[in-house]
Amino acid sequence: MLGKAGLLSSKESKELVKGLQEIERLLEKGEFSLSRENEDMHTAIESYLTQSLGETGKRIHLGRSRNDQVLTALRLFTKDSLKQIKNETKDLTFVILYFAKKYEFAPMPGYTHTQRAMPSSIGQWSSAFVESLLDDLMTLDSAIRLVDQSPLGSAAGYGTGLPIDREMTAKLLGFSKVQVNPIYCQNSRGKIESFVLACLSQVMETLAKIANDTIWFSSKEFGFLEIDDSLTTGSSIMPQKKNLDIMEVLRANSTTLQSNQFQLQTVSKNLISGYHKDLKITKQAVINSLEITQDSLQIVKLLFENMKPNEERLTAALDPEIYATDEVNKLAVQGTPFREAYKQIGENLSKLENQDPVENIKSKTHLGATGNLDLKNLQNRLKNS
Amino acid sequence: MLGKAGLLSSKESKELVKGLQEIERLLEKGEFSLSRENEDMHTAIESYLTQSLGETGKRIHLGRSRNDQVLTALRLFTKDSLKQIKNETKDLTFVILYFAKKYEFAPMPGYTHTQRAMPSSIGQWSSAFVESLLDDLMTLDSAIRLVDQSPLGSAAGYGTGLPIDREMTAKLLGFSKVQVNPIYCQNSRGKIESFVLACLSQVMETLAKIANDTIWFSSKEFGFLEIDDSLTTGSSIMPQKKNLDIMEVLRANSTTLQSNQFQLQTVSKNLISGYHKDLKITKQAVINSLEITQDSLQIVKLLFENMKPNEERLTAALDPEIYATDEVNKLAVQGTPFREAYKQIGENLSKLENQDPVENIKSKTHLGATGNLDLKNLQNRLKNS
Amino acid sequence: MLGKAGLLSSKESKELVKGLQEIERLLEKGEFSLSRENEDMHTAIESYLTQSLGETGKRIHLGRSRNDQVLTALRLFTKDSLKQIKNETKDLTFVILYFAKKYEFAPMPGYTHTQRAMPSSIGQWSSAFVESLLDDLMTLDSAIRLVDQSPLGSAAGYGTGLPIDREMTAKLLGFSKVQVNPIYCQNSRGKIESFVLACLSQVMETLAKIANDTIWFSSKEFGFLEIDDSLTTGSSIMPQKKNLDIMEVLRANSTTLQSNQFQLQTVSKNLISGYHKDLKITKQAVINSLEITQDSLQIVKLLFENMKPNEERLTAALDPEIYATDEVNKLAVQGTPFREAYKQIGENLSKLENQDPVENIKSKTHLGATGNLDLKNLQNRLKNS
Amino acid sequence: MLGKAGLLSSKESKELVKGLQEIERLLEKGEFSLSRENEDMHTAIESYLTQSLGETGKRIHLGRSRNDQVLTALRLFTKDSLKQIKNETKDLTFVILYFAKKYEFAPMPGYTHTQRAMPSSIGQWSSAFVESLLDDLMTLDSAIRLVDQSPLGSAAGYGTGLPIDREMTAKLLGFSKVQVNPIYCQNSRGKIESFVLACLSQVMETLAKIANDTIWFSSKEFGFLEIDDSLTTGSSIMPQKKNLDIMEVLRANSTTLQSNQFQLQTVSKNLISGYHKDLKITKQAVINSLEITQDSLQIVKLLFENMKPNEERLTAALDPEIYATDEVNKLAVQGTPFREAYKQIGENLSKLENQDPVENIKSKTHLGATGNLDLKNLQNRLKNS
Repeated sequence: MLGKAGLLSSKESKELVKGLQEIERLLEKGEFSLSRENEDMHTAIESYLTQSLGETGKRIHLGRSRNDQVLTALRLFTKDSLKQIKNETKDLTFVILYFAKKYEFAPMPGYTHTQRAMPSSIGQWSSAFVESLLDDLMTLDSAIRLVDQSPLGSAAGYGTGLPIDREMTAKLLGFSKVQVNPIYCQNSRGKIESFVLACLSQVMETLAKIANDTIWFSSKEFGFLEIDDSLTTGSSIMPQKKNLDIMEVLRANSTTLQSNQFQLQTVSKNLISGYHKDLKITKQAVINSLEITQDSLQIVKLLFENMKPNEERLTAALDPEIYATDEVNKLAVQGTPFREAYKQIGENLSKLENQDPVENIKSKTHLGATGNLDLKNLQNRLKNS
Repeated sequence: MLGKAGLLSSKESKELVKGLQEIERLLEKGEFSLSRENEDMHTAIESYLTQSLGETGKRIHLGRSRNDQVLTALRLFTKDSLKQIKNETKDLTFVILYFAKKYEFAPMPGYTHTQRAMPSSIGQWSSAFVESLLDDLMTLDSAIRLVDQSPLGSAAGYGTGLPIDREMTAKLLGFSKVQVNPIYCQNSRGKIESFVLACLSQVMETLAKIANDTIWFSSKEFGFLEIDDSLTTGSSIMPQKKNLDIMEVLRANSTTLQSNQFQLQTVSKNLISGYHKDLKITKQAVINSLEITQDSLQIVKLLFENMKPNEERLTAALDPEIYATDEVNKLAVQGTPFREAYKQIGENLSKLENQDPVENIKSKTHLGATGNLDLKNLQNRLKNS
Repeated sequence: MLGKAGLLSSKESKELVKGLQEIERLLEKGEFSLSRENEDMHTAIESYLTQSLGETGKRIHLGRSRNDQVLTALRLFTKDSLKQIKNETKDLTFVILYFAKKYEFAPMPGYTHTQRAMPSSIGQWSSAFVESLLDDLMTLDSAIRLVDQSPLGSAAGYGTGLPIDREMTAKLLGFSKVQVNPIYCQNSRGKIESFVLACLSQVMETLAKIANDTIWFSSKEFGFLEIDDSLTTGSSIMPQKKNLDIMEVLRANSTTLQSNQFQLQTVSKNLISGYHKDLKITKQAVINSLEITQDSLQIVKLLFENMKPNEERLTAALDPEIYATDEVNKLAVQGTPFREAYKQIGENLSKLENQDPVENIKSKTHLGATGNLDLKNLQNRLKNS
Repeated sequence: MLGKAGLLSSKESKELVKGLQEIERLLEKGEFSLSRENEDMHTAIESYLTQSLGETGKRIHLGRSRNDQVLTALRLFTKDSLKQIKNETKDLTFVILYFAKKYEFAPMPGYTHTQRAMPSSIGQWSSAFVESLLDDLMTLDSAIRLVDQSPLGSAAGYGTGLPIDREMTAKLLGFSKVQVNPIYCQNSRGKIESFVLACLSQVMETLAKIANDTIWFSSKEFGFLEIDDSLTTGSSIMPQKKNLDIMEVLRANSTTLQSNQFQLQTVSKNLISGYHKDLKITKQAVINSLEITQDSLQIVKLLFENMKPNEERLTAALDPEIYATDEVNKLAVQGTPFREAYKQIGENLSKLENQDPVENIKSKTHLGATGNLDLKNLQNRLKNS
């Protein structure tokens, strides 16, 4: 761009591009290293170019500042990572959808207030996460849209006197648009990042819900889910233990994202417009959060590939009382006012009889009910997401 | 819907609809009151219908639960408020854009690290908020999209045995789609709300930045902005004080949204799938946050309508040193390597001469620079948002 | 004080004191009301005195500012509430200690990673909360110590030119000392309050742990605890449900304290020294948190007074595997290296035999073990706290 | 202890102690390394002992679990660090006190609402931090008291069947007491640590206030403070800039502590009693926070040793209006009711005359006023803290 804009001669421009390509090659071979004297990658690149090209190398810093360089690099990295996360989220969702189909009519008690409430199914439980992740994919798109704007050329936050072409650099770097206002480029630091983390947190909340459910539902007390030994860990003193450490760590990591987001929201509080060194700290929070999300997606995929329902325990957990609401509804639909039907059944709980749970869950047919999970449609939405 | 689905007779259905319309009329006249015995609006409606329609009134609770009723009501309220907030955000953005145009070339020092850095302008400063709010409008759309799904019919979180038509109720209530999975309906409580607050927080962060900037820039030390006395407050013991209390309160309120969001993220932590009474607390956080955002938008609009730059103080603040970078760039473009030009100027700061600030800011013409704020384009984006 | 310092004449001083006593009497009778014109209590008092004493009434505002008045009132209220909370915490701890003694040797499985791990007891489980609350009492003392300093006389944050006697007012108001530096008085707003909330949060974390444990341990899956029907709530559609709503709400409220604390930490971020209107918002967070803590203490007391273990279910939950570690230790103490004993038992889990659980838990006698809970000593610490 | 309790033979005991001493020596020489196979230090120690002592080495794990080992190590490290932090806080406070004495009567405007309010002084401003740190020292003591209890012997959270002597190990490790209840030992993870961070946050809030004040007061607009060039940093494109990066980074780091604390509060939310792998994550948050606090204390000490007031700029900032409240008070003390005096002066602000600022600030003599900062007493409190 500097060449095209006449800020560098054609010769300088070509030499610099060649020098940068050389650095790329060295990086790929792992032969470009960051020494202590070079505070960061940007300085290292300039040093290398100066060493190999002399005066021309020094001209690389023309028309920009450390501020917009660092910010542009972070945006590029975030955008790439978010796209990868979106793909991995889709992969995982397909795996859970497959699980939901496979065990669509495996009966399972549904809980409210941590108490058995109504008949449900493994299909309904697991496809809840499919729909949750479909929403999360939509929020990931929002995050991608927001980071997909180029701050390059905003310099230290007030632009530059040089006639640079910001639209050209945006295009070359693969950004959809230019983030026009240089002050906004700096003011958006912390702000855009905290939104990205809010979006990642949506994914992590879904995963942490899965983690917590599977920890509980695979415990001795529930026994609903069986997880392959390869995913569990032993104890240093209790030989009988099989702990689901990987899900506990995931659950803990979801709080890391939230505390990172908290920090991004707080760090820029009450700073006047423009760059402040405080904002430096945002990089770590963003990179750490992207990594945690990627790892967690892999682990939950492994989980669903190595887990199966214990249908015996599940069926045993559906005791007669769980059908109370269904019985109330039967009376209500025959004309008894709901509140009275409720009272009638409530006073005769011990008379409730056991039912065929599979028949029960298949008999409920409204959209989303256990007999009509609409998995076909979820699958289509997933394909198009 | 209950009538159409054959769950109520045509007669019952008509009577109930009429009863509900009667309640609507009473509400509008302020004559429908919530007594202590009626725990909430849903019970009050059922009581009223039972009193006026007898047995038929009692049938109103058919096919749903308190859980999905409350959630549906909160979704409707949130969606309406978000749409209103979107409109008010657009209104405010137009006002700021007008301000930016009006003072497009009023010079102003640009700050980094709270230190005078480079020449900037009132136009550049204020249009930074225009572009920030344009991004915020986009995130508001994400929030609207997420709440725009009907949980009605998910009942207590596992659907119902009755053949209800959830697509019909979704349509009648103005939702774009059904939130299919009843377990996800409950699991999304706290989760979707926290995303809504993350989006509102984006707006509030922009407003809080405006608030903090104006508090500082209208202080004695800066004197860049003059705010009409009608917006300032006196002190109980210091007769000379004119405090910008309204901006301080706004700044404080932006933390209320963040702490509300924090609570929504935390409250559902490690709850197994399904409804829990813990989630009740989310309503207050959401309603409170929507109200704060609406109030804040009104106040910032008032601010921009009652504020003007003090061009004398602004111009005086652009001392010769602020042009140092421009001088470096001049040398750099003439061929001196950037680092050397930097060194040269740095060693001769006292020799820098004052410049015509308006000429300086107009001379910078790349996209987003003080001479090319691209306000036309921002205006178009705003119209289409 | 103003009289003693010669700032008011003896006559004025007496009249004002009499007027204030009159207000106190009216307040007790509920006859002193806060009208809309009087923005707050301080203005209402001044208005009343001016109405009844004329010119003398107007002199009440001498030597202080709204800033130190409001802060002093909040400190007094906080200190009183904290002392009450301390007493209520002690009361609750005695109730739990009584519960622990009563069921000292009721066996119970101990859990790690949500998996049955080792034999434990109701006594060990409940006295864990006794020791937790003993620590919390200590932190409450730290909070009391910090708020127990008088900011009165710091005026707007820089003191006053009048020769007021701050030590005298501190003494009269029952403060242990003067908060000397007026700037610190203002800078400590938000800061001291956030520490108070950190201390209250310690109490709430203990109570929320109790809440979460009892929700789980009283569920069908565990069945360890039976809670009186008077404390449970029904469902609007499921007649068989008995929900522990009160504990769920408490659990949710613990997050309110944390988000309030978060707000107090954030609101004062990056404000320069001295008062800012932002700090106004701290009052609500503090008062709300004090009230929640007091309510929660009452509710948990009710819980322990209306709960009993289901010893049958508890005993049944201690299956042979839970004694695995004890068997490892037996071998280890006889000379088999720990790791080998662990391996040996681990490979023969199915051969483990059931044991008498009461005998097992009584046989463990080191300090804190199930057979030696040291309740006597906990009781003494409680008495002296 | 294991030897004394008869769990190891005298010979085994002596060999193990000797082996551990050998490890200590290797550690000091930097020759004891942690290989990949040894997951952590505890395993590395056991491996080493087993290699050098054979069967006897394996007996080292007797009577404890990874859970209580890790927790005990973290407690010891935290306690040591807190004590060091306390000392460094005292050192810093002495330095600030010296600064306050040196510039006790250097006049300075006092600000409220970011507006000049009343006359103050460098002495009053800086000794505000002295008193703040005195309070912080008290809260550090609370933190130390809470971590100063030994969880060793609580094993996996339910004690052990072996007759270990927990009081003896507590004493040997330098703990003041035993944390008796093994379940509480585990339940207190996250809880005690979050209190420690709340206490450290108090220190960091004081330091961040100093940082923010000095950033502003050393800016061009204020010019109140001059900071030695050795503490400032240049810009990559603006040769005239001297940025106070170190204070900006400190200010940002104070949010790291808050977000760490947030994480500690959240991570243990809704976990049933007993250990969970989630708690593993707490270590990083604690160690990171301790390090940040130590670094920040060092930096602020450097700041006060390399900073001096610019008395010319300070004096110039005290314009006539700043004396308005003093004039009101003069009238009020002569008998004009306060509200009327206020009105009178307010209407004649332009008639206010300049005063000798030093005389003004010396004339205010109540406790804490600019003429009576009570530095002697603060110094005594500091010595005794």
